[in-house]
Amino acid sequence: MKTLNIGLIGYGFMGRAHSNAFRKAPNFFKLPYQPVLKAACGRDEAKVAAFATQWGYESFETDWRKLIARQDIDLVDIACPNDLHREIAMAAAKAGKMVTCEKPLSMDGAEGLKMVAAIEKAGVPNMVWYNYRRVPAVTLAKQLIEEGRLGRIFHYRAKFLQDWTISADLPQGGAGLWRLDVNVAGSGVTGDLLAHCIDTALWLNGPIQTVNAMTETFVKQRKHSLTGKVEKVGIDDACAFLARFQNGSLATFESTRYARGHKALYTFEINGEHASIAWDLHDLHRLQYFDHRDEGRVRGWRNLHITDGDHPYMDKWWVPGLQIGYEHSFVHQFADFVQGLGEGTPASPTFREALATQYVCDAVLKSGSTQRWQKVKQVQDKK
Amino acid sequence: MKTLNIGLIGYGFMGRAHSNAFRKAPNFFKLPYQPVLKAACGRDEAKVAAFATQWGYESFETDWRKLIARQDIDLVDIACPNDLHREIAMAAAKAGKMVTCEKPLSMDGAEGLKMVAAIEKAGVPNMVWYNYRRVPAVTLAKQLIEEGRLGRIFHYRAKFLQDWTISADLPQGGAGLWRLDVNVAGSGVTGDLLAHCIDTALWLNGPIQTVNAMTETFVKQRKHSLTGKVEKVGIDDACAFLARFQNGSLATFESTRYARGHKALYTFEINGEHASIAWDLHDLHRLQYFDHRDEGRVRGWRNLHITDGDHPYMDKWWVPGLQIGYEHSFVHQFADFVQGLGEGTPASPTFREALATQYVCDAVLKSGSTQRWQKVKQVQDKK
Amino acid sequence: MKTLNIGLIGYGFMGRAHSNAFRKAPNFFKLPYQPVLKAACGRDEAKVAAFATQWGYESFETDWRKLIARQDIDLVDIACPNDLHREIAMAAAKAGKMVTCEKPLSMDGAEGLKMVAAIEKAGVPNMVWYNYRRVPAVTLAKQLIEEGRLGRIFHYRAKFLQDWTISADLPQGGAGLWRLDVNVAGSGVTGDLLAHCIDTALWLNGPIQTVNAMTETFVKQRKHSLTGKVEKVGIDDACAFLARFQNGSLATFESTRYARGHKALYTFEINGEHASIAWDLHDLHRLQYFDHRDEGRVRGWRNLHITDGDHPYMDKWWVPGLQIGYEHSFVHQFADFVQGLGEGTPASPTFREALATQYVCDAVLKSGSTQRWQKVKQVQDKK
Amino acid sequence: MKTLNIGLIGYGFMGRAHSNAFRKAPNFFKLPYQPVLKAACGRDEAKVAAFATQWGYESFETDWRKLIARQDIDLVDIACPNDLHREIAMAAAKAGKMVTCEKPLSMDGAEGLKMVAAIEKAGVPNMVWYNYRRVPAVTLAKQLIEEGRLGRIFHYRAKFLQDWTISADLPQGGAGLWRLDVNVAGSGVTGDLLAHCIDTALWLNGPIQTVNAMTETFVKQRKHSLTGKVEKVGIDDACAFLARFQNGSLATFESTRYARGHKALYTFEINGEHASIAWDLHDLHRLQYFDHRDEGRVRGWRNLHITDGDHPYMDKWWVPGLQIGYEHSFVHQFADFVQGLGEGTPASPTFREALATQYVCDAVLKSGSTQRWQKVKQVQDKK
Repeated sequence: MKTLNIGLIGYGFMGRAHSNAFRKAPNFFKLPYQPVLKAACGRDEAKVAAFATQWGYESFETDWRKLIARQDIDLVDIACPNDLHREIAMAAAKAGKMVTCEKPLSMDGAEGLKMVAAIEKAGVPNMVWYNYRRVPAVTLAKQLIEEGRLGRIFHYRAKFLQDWTISADLPQGGAGLWRLDVNVAGSGVTGDLLAHCIDTALWLNGPIQTVNAMTETFVKQRKHSLTGKVEKVGIDDACAFLARFQNGSLATFESTRYARGHKALYTFEINGEHASIAWDLHDLHRLQYFDHRDEGRVRGWRNLHITDGDHPYMDKWWVPGLQIGYEHSFVHQFADFVQGLGEGTPASPTFREALATQYVCDAVLKSGSTQRWQKVKQVQDKK
Repeated sequence: MKTLNIGLIGYGFMGRAHSNAFRKAPNFFKLPYQPVLKAACGRDEAKVAAFATQWGYESFETDWRKLIARQDIDLVDIACPNDLHREIAMAAAKAGKMVTCEKPLSMDGAEGLKMVAAIEKAGVPNMVWYNYRRVPAVTLAKQLIEEGRLGRIFHYRAKFLQDWTISADLPQGGAGLWRLDVNVAGSGVTGDLLAHCIDTALWLNGPIQTVNAMTETFVKQRKHSLTGKVEKVGIDDACAFLARFQNGSLATFESTRYARGHKALYTFEINGEHASIAWDLHDLHRLQYFDHRDEGRVRGWRNLHITDGDHPYMDKWWVPGLQIGYEHSFVHQFADFVQGLGEGTPASPTFREALATQYVCDAVLKSGSTQRWQKVKQVQDKK
Repeated sequence: MKTLNIGLIGYGFMGRAHSNAFRKAPNFFKLPYQPVLKAACGRDEAKVAAFATQWGYESFETDWRKLIARQDIDLVDIACPNDLHREIAMAAAKAGKMVTCEKPLSMDGAEGLKMVAAIEKAGVPNMVWYNYRRVPAVTLAKQLIEEGRLGRIFHYRAKFLQDWTISADLPQGGAGLWRLDVNVAGSGVTGDLLAHCIDTALWLNGPIQTVNAMTETFVKQRKHSLTGKVEKVGIDDACAFLARFQNGSLATFESTRYARGHKALYTFEINGEHASIAWDLHDLHRLQYFDHRDEGRVRGWRNLHITDGDHPYMDKWWVPGLQIGYEHSFVHQFADFVQGLGEGTPASPTFREALATQYVCDAVLKSGSTQRWQKVKQVQDKK
Repeated sequence: MKTLNIGLIGYGFMGRAHSNAFRKAPNFFKLPYQPVLKAACGRDEAKVAAFATQWGYESFETDWRKLIARQDIDLVDIACPNDLHREIAMAAAKAGKMVTCEKPLSMDGAEGLKMVAAIEKAGVPNMVWYNYRRVPAVTLAKQLIEEGRLGRIFHYRAKFLQDWTISADLPQGGAGLWRLDVNVAGSGVTGDLLAHCIDTALWLNGPIQTVNAMTETFVKQRKHSLTGKVEKVGIDDACAFLARFQNGSLATFESTRYARGHKALYTFEINGEHASIAWDLHDLHRLQYFDHRDEGRVRGWRNLHITDGDHPYMDKWWVPGLQIGYEHSFVHQFADFVQGLGEGTPASPTFREALATQYVCDAVLKSGSTQRWQKVKQVQDKK
């Protein structure tokens, strides 16, 4: 079998999630390429070396430019903070590598547009890790919608609630905390959490046309881990927005890191003329489905336990009744990407598709500061 | 409209529940008789007088024999402790009164058999307050089973869990605590709680043929409220039993007052060839329904919110989405009784029907002491 | 005991809910006045007569002015459509009657302000039936907040979802459908459903300062039941809005009658620094409570079954574990009103308090049409 | 690092689950030995070769005796049907290999006793894959009990419900269906499913002294896949039993493959004097905990989302809020085994510990046929 030599950049939370996907996919899926964990790259030599050992990478690098320059790398996987995505992705594309990039694609839409141009000019396979599309329950939601079961859509609502930054003593910046540093993250909950909600929404319900947002930074100043000084916090701690989709449906979106009691509660619900669907990340192996066409007396929300062989991806895992978890969404996404390589059909979302989410984020942040409805820039189809 | 003059005996928890039913039924149901709260009866004059005032009874008595002797009473309702059921019911029947009796019918099957004989000899309308049959979700379960939706039944499981007697300092006997005094209650959880589970089971799933029980009294001695002395506890604190139904299905039943965290958690589940049903008293306005004939990908337990107009009794109450509660089961039972009077069809369960539950309880308690399987005595059809 | 003679205007859904409260309250609460159902009033003589009989009213009227003119009426209860609230309330106040009025108080804030002026000039006891405050779980939420358990509040989110107007064949106007007729209802979901959400929010979380709304009418034209013609629909079918409270917390509110699968799903959640609370109307006897001060390993959302004697109002009902329902919120509100009469402390919300909700509704509707943030007019304290 | 060379026997469902554990453990845990997937063994050469390739085994064998004879194998892992456990385990022990064996340990207690003797005579590290002990929620339950939080235990109840054999057309025997063939499986649900419930119960609640069971075979005859003939079904399709633990608590256990709507619903609940715990396999990442010592008004079942860093094993995985699944219980068990090797403390359950479950199963099956209470044989401590 042909090999697919992978070079990973970044060994944090996402570096582990991606590596696990690279390793597990071939055990559970029949793939046209055999992934090889060729090299891991990070700035701290001791740490990247230990990471490479623990995850079975054949080698490591401390300079991402060197990694890209290596002839034995087919695919560059970007799992480092947001502020480096653009430069790395464009260099990798230029070097003719396939590129997979952790979300969000970029710091903003303008940056993302450049990345799309570069990657498409290079003509290399590419993908952004919006992994929640590949949670089997979410994929099933997509199937049900595409089959027309919901009919006309009236409402979409999504939220992503966390509670880990409530303490004002938490610093910003540096390892594990770069998501609080606007210069590294680009934005707060909008790019980190709402980006997931938006990507799923665009996928399931089509383009968003206009948005109206409210943003807030509850803790105005935090000590910066790198400078040691108390500095202004530039990110949005919370963001809620109203939206109108092209299909006429109305939406509410909300995200915060100040919702006590919720660790990673991403939820969405879609109400259609005939049926409704709801899902949440805290019980990601379930999908709630209501079908008005059921007989009245026994009509109710169906609590689907997404573990059966006829559910998306689930024939690859264990037996009915036995649940999978968070990490499997990455395995599925990587397996789909490799399958796509074999078949010539790129796995979604590509850089171009992921750019649409950046444009929504841009409009949301702009609306938050202008306090006005904003039109969302639309991504053109690839020529 | 003709009136139905009611004399209530007992002004405790059940006296209130029945009175509420008498008062509310005509507001929500079209009844062929107008209930009149004629007299309340209890031994403590001050208390029964206050009760009569609060609930709108026209008069009160302190001797139940006087109540029965009154010409202006049509219906004697028995809501006092178990040890008085027999004597009162038989006297009332002899006096030609209709009799409604709080469950359990009697202290044991032998006593119950005498009551049935007396009441049927007198030919008076009669009913036992097994109110849970009239929770709309439970009535719907009955409908679904009768329509054959479940197919062959394989399993029945029920439990009734409480936690109010865990403290060894709780006395037995006297007001509010007579359920711990075997001489007044007849038995512990078997007659108090399992009787409910058994009545529902017989109604939904047919006769029980054999049982095998385990009983336990965790706190062996308690101070008696009436004597002031520490006395042996004669009731069963907990009882679990295996059973086989005539239809070939297997069952487990369990009840206890030592299940920390559960106040009145009566639950049952029925597994049939094609479908399953589950219900619990802590969310009595819901019914869980699983139908294997649903399409595989969207097959799951349906969480039915039993508040729609096509659910049993619910067209009489508010609008869809708005739940009713515990007390409404009594309202329904009384309304059905009065409707039955008008139509000549007695409302179930009659004394004879309720006797079947006594026989199961007898077999359960006997099995608990003999540690053997016991055959359940069957009630004959009325000649 | 002194009597409280009640005259009810309107015999629809709310007429029944109020009547049930008048009848039940004295059975379960010790009240300083004995409510007497003196007269029911409605335009259709046959119907109001039947209603009076079924609910035990001593008499009936077909003209509300006559009812108000009667000397034997102490309290005028307004349970008719919104467009009549103002005229009736002001006439009743002028006649020196106590006035209780179904929500929303008025068609809009301007009308409401006049009503407040009139009622306060007359100096009569008054109350608006925002009944959800008296659901025991909601009252408990209020207690927990007032005790400071949540700490600084960051987020409030509420929604009220229904699905009964999805069919375009449903007419507007007339009996049972006046809520779709803007001339009778004043607005759509904003005044009908969001008014409930807003009232609870103001009570639990203090004043709302600014709002930003999106409204939609999905079905633009419907046949009018009274004219027989297809007419433009003037109400809002759906409304979502962002809000900022005076205490610095952010909020999202949403309501619709197009959320398939939800009959009356009113939900709210409050996230504070230390603790969070969530509630929903479909399981109104439960409250979800998360306390971050719990030990980490066993920290989780507590599913409170609000049926214990130390829960608000619950010592008046049955025993722990046994739930009450929707209608009890009206019983509680009426009992509190009558208690307030005895103690000289008016039960909330008074007309003045309910005016605050009208002002929020006004701002929401204005924002929906201007597509801008709107400042909310604040109600001044009574001089 | 020292290596641990593994030879796996069996490449079915459990062969995959174990292999996944061998591969993942070193990525997530710091282990004193590096596991090496040395050889996979199975009778069908083509299949075992494909399996070895897919899972990264260096080689394969078609005769388990050859595998055991290999010098380069340190650990023999038994993942084949029950009827081969004894012979393989004893041969592997004799050859001085470490042995890990899929549950149940043996066809019955007598066989198990021989295996224990052999393995202990050989003095080799050994373990039985009762994986559910290592679901983090279950491990947390163990911690809470050991800390004495529950106080005196009154009740234990467990069930394991499936629905995959309801169709009478399903054959018995052969690949994927050997669990229906009594000669291969030893018993039906008792050894397959109840064995899990019993192992957990013994671990959490101590020894079981007596049992009283009811067994049933609903489908009496099935075609045998290997012979092609309709043959008598020898297994128990369903089994329920009552039990008494040494600590005085009462228990009910139930298992079936005829509970429509449940795929792998293993549940247990423990009620203690002060607190209760409940868990189920369909949401294995949650634990329900009720503590009576909580303040009354806010006392309720706590729904613990077992994804935080202070929950057992969870600091090794992702971030709070992100769930793991079924397969991780095997990873944990293998990691514990390897840790135990390093520290000289064997991981539980050893063969000796797993024998206790066999003895309970024996008593259960005997009680099912004698219809009497049976005393459970106790495993002696290792001398």
